[in-house]
Amino acid sequence: MIGTVAGSAAMYHAMTSLGLASESRYKGPIRLEGDPKGASVLVLGAGLAGMTSALELRKAGYTVQILEFNGRPGGRNWTLRGGDTFTELGGHKQLCEFEDGLYLNPGPWRIPYHHRALLDYCRRLGVALEPFNQLNHNALLHSVRAFDGKPQRLRAVKADFQGQIAELLAKVTQQGKLDETVSKEDQEILLQALRSWGALDNGYGYKANLISAEFRGYTRDPGGGLTAMPEPSEPVGLSEVLKSRLWRYLRGFAHYNFQTTMFQPVGGMDMIGKAFAKEVGDLIRYNAKVTQIQQDARGVTVSYVDAKHPGAVQQVHADWCVCTIPLTILSQLPLDVSAAMKSAIDAVPYAASVKIGLQFKRRFWEEDEAIYGGISYTDLPIRQIAYPNYHYNRAGRGVLLGAYLFDGPNSYEFTAMSPAERVARAVEFGAVIHPQYKSEFENGIAVAWHRVPFVLGCSGDWSDETRAAHYNNLCQIDGRIVLAGEHASALPAWQEGAILSALDAIGRLHDRVVRT
Amino acid sequence: MIGTVAGSAAMYHAMTSLGLASESRYKGPIRLEGDPKGASVLVLGAGLAGMTSALELRKAGYTVQILEFNGRPGGRNWTLRGGDTFTELGGHKQLCEFEDGLYLNPGPWRIPYHHRALLDYCRRLGVALEPFNQLNHNALLHSVRAFDGKPQRLRAVKADFQGQIAELLAKVTQQGKLDETVSKEDQEILLQALRSWGALDNGYGYKANLISAEFRGYTRDPGGGLTAMPEPSEPVGLSEVLKSRLWRYLRGFAHYNFQTTMFQPVGGMDMIGKAFAKEVGDLIRYNAKVTQIQQDARGVTVSYVDAKHPGAVQQVHADWCVCTIPLTILSQLPLDVSAAMKSAIDAVPYAASVKIGLQFKRRFWEEDEAIYGGISYTDLPIRQIAYPNYHYNRAGRGVLLGAYLFDGPNSYEFTAMSPAERVARAVEFGAVIHPQYKSEFENGIAVAWHRVPFVLGCSGDWSDETRAAHYNNLCQIDGRIVLAGEHASALPAWQEGAILSALDAIGRLHDRVVRT
Repeated sequence: MIGTVAGSAAMYHAMTSLGLASESRYKGPIRLEGDPKGASVLVLGAGLAGMTSALELRKAGYTVQILEFNGRPGGRNWTLRGGDTFTELGGHKQLCEFEDGLYLNPGPWRIPYHHRALLDYCRRLGVALEPFNQLNHNALLHSVRAFDGKPQRLRAVKADFQGQIAELLAKVTQQGKLDETVSKEDQEILLQALRSWGALDNGYGYKANLISAEFRGYTRDPGGGLTAMPEPSEPVGLSEVLKSRLWRYLRGFAHYNFQTTMFQPVGGMDMIGKAFAKEVGDLIRYNAKVTQIQQDARGVTVSYVDAKHPGAVQQVHADWCVCTIPLTILSQLPLDVSAAMKSAIDAVPYAASVKIGLQFKRRFWEEDEAIYGGISYTDLPIRQIAYPNYHYNRAGRGVLLGAYLFDGPNSYEFTAMSPAERVARAVEFGAVIHPQYKSEFENGIAVAWHRVPFVLGCSGDWSDETRAAHYNNLCQIDGRIVLAGEHASALPAWQEGAILSALDAIGRLHDRVVRT
Repeated sequence: MIGTVAGSAAMYHAMTSLGLASESRYKGPIRLEGDPKGASVLVLGAGLAGMTSALELRKAGYTVQILEFNGRPGGRNWTLRGGDTFTELGGHKQLCEFEDGLYLNPGPWRIPYHHRALLDYCRRLGVALEPFNQLNHNALLHSVRAFDGKPQRLRAVKADFQGQIAELLAKVTQQGKLDETVSKEDQEILLQALRSWGALDNGYGYKANLISAEFRGYTRDPGGGLTAMPEPSEPVGLSEVLKSRLWRYLRGFAHYNFQTTMFQPVGGMDMIGKAFAKEVGDLIRYNAKVTQIQQDARGVTVSYVDAKHPGAVQQVHADWCVCTIPLTILSQLPLDVSAAMKSAIDAVPYAASVKIGLQFKRRFWEEDEAIYGGISYTDLPIRQIAYPNYHYNRAGRGVLLGAYLFDGPNSYEFTAMSPAERVARAVEFGAVIHPQYKSEFENGIAVAWHRVPFVLGCSGDWSDETRAAHYNNLCQIDGRIVLAGEHASALPAWQEGAILSALDAIGRLHDRVVRT
């Protein structure tokens, strides 16, 4: 498949000449020109960074091997389905009991439109994509401290915030309070804009009428035949809108990383890892737990044991090494690198994150509440309830993401629980938002990333200070070793970061090989 | 299929008790209780209103027939694919030359999440749905009078409008100009909200930095490895934002009718009409052009001729008639109804609308510009360019909606052209937005609804005055005749309006039959 799709070169030329280009760092398929003269590369880790490296290096003429800790490709590119088991650090083993066709992506679960490298690999590798719905106007925003704890429709919160802001600014404009800073002509246009965008009436008021209802929704929708006329709903006042603090969720939907159009692979995120493995699977030694990484002037020697039945230490030798092992684990290994790189490896903590998948007897969120995909947000410890973006409008079972935690204390609390307790808590809290949980819940599975043996955390959690001090040292080629992975990117936790870091690393590695 | 899906009754109970219900007029599958004692109903038109009526009336025990003008079911629920031909009023015949799998929906093309009746029929009839992407942050907004005619990314327009509005209101707040109307406590929260939602910096300014770039996009995206750090982009100033008038497109994305999550049937909108026809196809006489509708105290007699080979007039008699013939055509037929209903039928003009589908050699909007689905807006005569919401990220050909006109003069102008000229103009104007049109265009097809023989317009175009004077008269049962269709609803042009009007009409008809 690779390289057979026409038009990639033409495409990036067109992007640039249009001036409308995606501003991605990805400039199309990497070209590793020049003869590596049979040089060998050992890749550590068969996640997306490792498999991207292996795929492109083999294509460029290198002899490539991959050592992978897990018994499957993909790393954090991972999907749990019925029949899968997962044993976390501490020994708790879970069996996933989801119905056939339903799944949880414990790791990455969405792909922004501007992640051009990942999308190009999906295209070249034939991974079918479907939309991931981040913003659902009919999903819920919930705070235990607002509206007596009753969830609000996102559309109403959004319309009321915009409407009240617009009315406030329109009033100020009409009172002449902008005269010093905004021209009269612009003030006129501003009033038009506020009226249009804020759903204001002719008097620039945001009120209960069919204008505001066209955005926040109706008490009674328009219908057909006799008695078909709609009835408007009642907007929430400025003070209550502000004090609810539900406005804080609105920014997320406009964030570059979460803007429409987002994608997910049809059938689960691991379809990407599997597609890569179709290309490079023959290079991967699975269940290989790396125990030591040595290098000298002539090459790299990596020791490993069988991860499932640790016994005799085995060794692989290669001219070069692309190491994608997460820093949490790499920092614990004997490793021959410079003090600067070692300091960098030791400097980056990994974010805590917990995801909990819950299966229900029926898709009540769609059937009862017309919520199709997207995410409800709450200040309850579960933080989010994400509805499946597949099998829309079908009868039968469904799997929700019943909790997605990623801030510190909250995640640590859930990480400390047993998996069964995590699931029970997710059901308990979720029932506050959706009372149907109580009668419809069937089973669940919980992944706390700090307890996931192959990564011991969710992703590299760089602070500005750490990045300033260590990032460049982490990314330099150190002798015959170069690191790659989301931790070696400015896109932590994103698959695009893993791929771009790999392309950058192997590009520099190849330059060095060809030049020396 | 119908009625075999469990849970519909439970579902609507749950909706009500939650207080989170969709405010739809649809209360679940209609229950026509009581024995119609063999009464017969003649349904005129096999669009969604007609087929809904036929399906439910037969189920309730009626003897049902349908007369349909076209040689296919669905009416405006219609999809054009390669090999299809279409002859418009005036005699121009077009052959659709789209590649297999590509299509144009000349009529309805999207389904809002709150169109509960339509979604329930899709579910009961097994019509697979996929998301229709209305809002694409990476699509373009374009005005010939703004930014030297250069299209702007929607995300940038949105971020800049919000940012500038937020900065303006924050300044006013800090200057104490809200002190009379907003409490100090609320002002504090307002400032926090404006900063969060408007992407303001610590000083409440909207500036070129990594805060605004997180919404409007970067000059250089974050990358991987060395030199991975992002570079912010330059926001547009308040005055230019306002004068561009591109803000006027923002409201549409938040409109109740166009909010996420929207749907389209997988494979084309006519999958719905076809699914209905699987249920009621045996009742339909196709190519039947109604020429007269008579009624007396005992029943209804409808005369028709073969639409393709008009010859001898034939007649059908039934106890009752549900007439879904568009008012444009019904107003021209001899029809025995009250003066009040006749006036109503004559009172409603039909909206003009033109849709043009264009096939291109490759999906350059995705490949070159990272635009996946959604709609670009322009003040050029084409008004919109809508990108296909299927086959995302695939290599190969694609079909755009190259023009969607629905305001008067503009639509009339295109309606007056020959189909070939419409297509040529769509390509010419579209090339202003996407220069790739010139080298990539292959073929197109244009549907001007005022020239579509079976409806002579897009949909019933009610004014408030016309509705006040005539709507109830249009919807009353007149002797043995009742009208249905989107024109007999408060949801003109929407399929939901057609179905809800049919359910309302047959409900009242059934009451009368059972009571008499």
